[in-house]
Amino acid sequence: MKLLIRAPTLVTVNARDDVLEGADLAIDGDTIVGVGSSPAGFVPDRIVDGRDRIVLPGLINTHTHLSMTLMRNYADDLEFWPWLLERVKPLEDHLLPEDVRIGARLGLAEMIRGGTTCFHDMYFLMDEVADEVAQAGVRGRLCGALFDHSGRGDALLEAAVALHERWHGKADGRVTVGLGPHSPYLCSAGYLREIIGEAERLKCGLHIHVAETDREVAESRERHGLSPVQRLAEIGCFRVPTVAAHGIYVDAADRRLLREGNVSVAHNPGSNLKLANGIAPVQELLDDGINVSLGTDGAASNNNLNLFEEMHLAALLQKWLKRDPAALPARRALRMATIDGAKALGMEAQIGSLEVGKQADIVLVDAAQPHLAPRHDPVALLVYSAQAADVCMVLVKGRILLEDRKLTTIDAESLLEHATEQTRQLLARACAAKS
Amino acid sequence: MKLLIRAPTLVTVNARDDVLEGADLAIDGDTIVGVGSSPAGFVPDRIVDGRDRIVLPGLINTHTHLSMTLMRNYADDLEFWPWLLERVKPLEDHLLPEDVRIGARLGLAEMIRGGTTCFHDMYFLMDEVADEVAQAGVRGRLCGALFDHSGRGDALLEAAVALHERWHGKADGRVTVGLGPHSPYLCSAGYLREIIGEAERLKCGLHIHVAETDREVAESRERHGLSPVQRLAEIGCFRVPTVAAHGIYVDAADRRLLREGNVSVAHNPGSNLKLANGIAPVQELLDDGINVSLGTDGAASNNNLNLFEEMHLAALLQKWLKRDPAALPARRALRMATIDGAKALGMEAQIGSLEVGKQADIVLVDAAQPHLAPRHDPVALLVYSAQAADVCMVLVKGRILLEDRKLTTIDAESLLEHATEQTRQLLARACAAKS
Repeated sequence: MKLLIRAPTLVTVNARDDVLEGADLAIDGDTIVGVGSSPAGFVPDRIVDGRDRIVLPGLINTHTHLSMTLMRNYADDLEFWPWLLERVKPLEDHLLPEDVRIGARLGLAEMIRGGTTCFHDMYFLMDEVADEVAQAGVRGRLCGALFDHSGRGDALLEAAVALHERWHGKADGRVTVGLGPHSPYLCSAGYLREIIGEAERLKCGLHIHVAETDREVAESRERHGLSPVQRLAEIGCFRVPTVAAHGIYVDAADRRLLREGNVSVAHNPGSNLKLANGIAPVQELLDDGINVSLGTDGAASNNNLNLFEEMHLAALLQKWLKRDPAALPARRALRMATIDGAKALGMEAQIGSLEVGKQADIVLVDAAQPHLAPRHDPVALLVYSAQAADVCMVLVKGRILLEDRKLTTIDAESLLEHATEQTRQLLARACAAKS
Repeated sequence: MKLLIRAPTLVTVNARDDVLEGADLAIDGDTIVGVGSSPAGFVPDRIVDGRDRIVLPGLINTHTHLSMTLMRNYADDLEFWPWLLERVKPLEDHLLPEDVRIGARLGLAEMIRGGTTCFHDMYFLMDEVADEVAQAGVRGRLCGALFDHSGRGDALLEAAVALHERWHGKADGRVTVGLGPHSPYLCSAGYLREIIGEAERLKCGLHIHVAETDREVAESRERHGLSPVQRLAEIGCFRVPTVAAHGIYVDAADRRLLREGNVSVAHNPGSNLKLANGIAPVQELLDDGINVSLGTDGAASNNNLNLFEEMHLAALLQKWLKRDPAALPARRALRMATIDGAKALGMEAQIGSLEVGKQADIVLVDAAQPHLAPRHDPVALLVYSAQAADVCMVLVKGRILLEDRKLTTIDAESLLEHATEQTRQLLARACAAKS
């Protein structure tokens, strides 16, 4: 289909951060063919009125655990270890494929509603997630969580490799697969080497939690004489494309290793504050030339999958941390949520900005609302004033996944009933096992 | 009218923080007459289906500059002084009554849409604001900004007193009037004493910026040998009910004075981060027995009037500041935005919770949405997951101001056109004066 979005405000996130007022966006099939005007001879099958619409590239969530959406608001205002061991893990011990599937579907519904078109996941039973992604129409880079401290290492890695074989490049290329070693502290050096070997063989990347708590760093130094980043570098992790989630406690030496290894840091400001883990030194990471993208983490620790909120938080926190209101300006926060997310996933040639030849992963924001007026600066407005609910239309590969704020690929009503019932069953299962 | 909200989740914010599932809320005229069930013989004129609705008290914004909404996204990512002197002030120097009126109307539309039913304002030309509040149906405590450093002190105070005479208690009691000495640094001691005298005569409260920046505190100590709080206490400010906005740089001695003076601190986490001013020590203030409410500040420094966001931010920031994820739990954040806001304004007998005999200032949140499922904990859900746009119905004094997310007292469409045009004129006026 040939689609023309007529005369919106285009926030391109191109290299010059161009914002074009009243500029057409032309889409042919899955590709952007005109930015600012249509190509010669372009006859649209459909025209979308872009007045009072701000159009931006689809947002990219580079760290989440999608299926944990079933645990949203289940364990709040708790310290990290009781949160994990007494609340989250007892449920995870009894997860069935259907829990993972419905949790993923619920998360996908939320993400599409909020303008997220691509995400980077780490969890269990990922075939269920892959199937849901295929049906929902978004892009997902899916990584089975890997750890060998519990003796399940081989089985998990085998399943992760099998997932790659079954799903990588499927659903018209929307599903890709990486490997998800959980963290330096849950993976032995030998196991990490095995995972790296598989990643090299499969030509895929790694998704790993790194330096999320000061305790993790202190224990690593104590046990190994190395920071988590140093240890991963020494083991050879950064030979393959790596996204390090969190990266809160990284010193200058760590940052040099991250830069040399071309590692991207996925910044998760909401989750990091909520668990009182800290604030990543985003400004220093950027100053050192490291690519920094944004993530929500799972809904069990956030408690949402709202990248508008993460953009806002990221910008506010760096201003405070650097005692400089000019730190992390709106344009940079938006880049982190779009093109820099694409870079983290090695997809910057395909997605992350509105440019001719790129994939039509596109978000329209309804700016005809009191809290989005007046419109002095559309980018500041997206970062500081907009809500996820302001997204009114979403396309991925030119296919409409949200229109008039309604999901086209997911039945929202039956989903909510289904999620409530599935959550009830999960809790009952965990409770029965306990007694 | 007798209104019954049938079987919603009631988040009462009463003294026990009761959350009642499937509990009716009965309203007779402007008053809540049943919480959990209807009184005997209650025959409603209208029944609202409360399934999938979370009902909470109307939110209370205890520090804002409503009419600055016209400057939303006009001056971002700038340091405080250039922001104020080079961007905001040149516009404020050319404000006409119509600018203030339309800015207020735009802010009121945003506030009602986001569940705010009462606000505490400080600005200029407040008759315009009062008239808009009267028409919009919300509650406003309106305070003309007062300062004498520019020689306009007498005229401003005269106007503020006249505002009290004209508007205090008007619009069925929804409009009340206080006095707004801008700050210790823009008011001489003599002027502050005059204001306090007027406040005592009028039996009204004060609304003042206090300890917003470290520079303010340092300069006060240098000039007066006293912190801003100490100086205000010495001048006698706290003899009258006072809301101190910001209160970021307050030490233990200051906090003792605030407690002894029954001063409420209006915490503005979004604006304080955005201008890189800091994070108020909310946990210490609470530990010392000080009432802490929430505010958005003006849209020129926030850049929205969204109290859902401020609740979320307040909770996240204290967790980080105290290195304790249990700090400022969701229930406390919600109290700050409701009953503690009512206390700040001396209105806790009338509003701030869902209790029999209180005024029917009520917000319904549409919880039938992916990002609000599942519903393990309705309060955590309101604070950590909800967006302002999830508000679907708002009542003040039993009158419906928002229904199906549509404003009933403000024409949103003409407002947006009007706000755009008014902003254009204001910019043109300021620009013409400059050249």
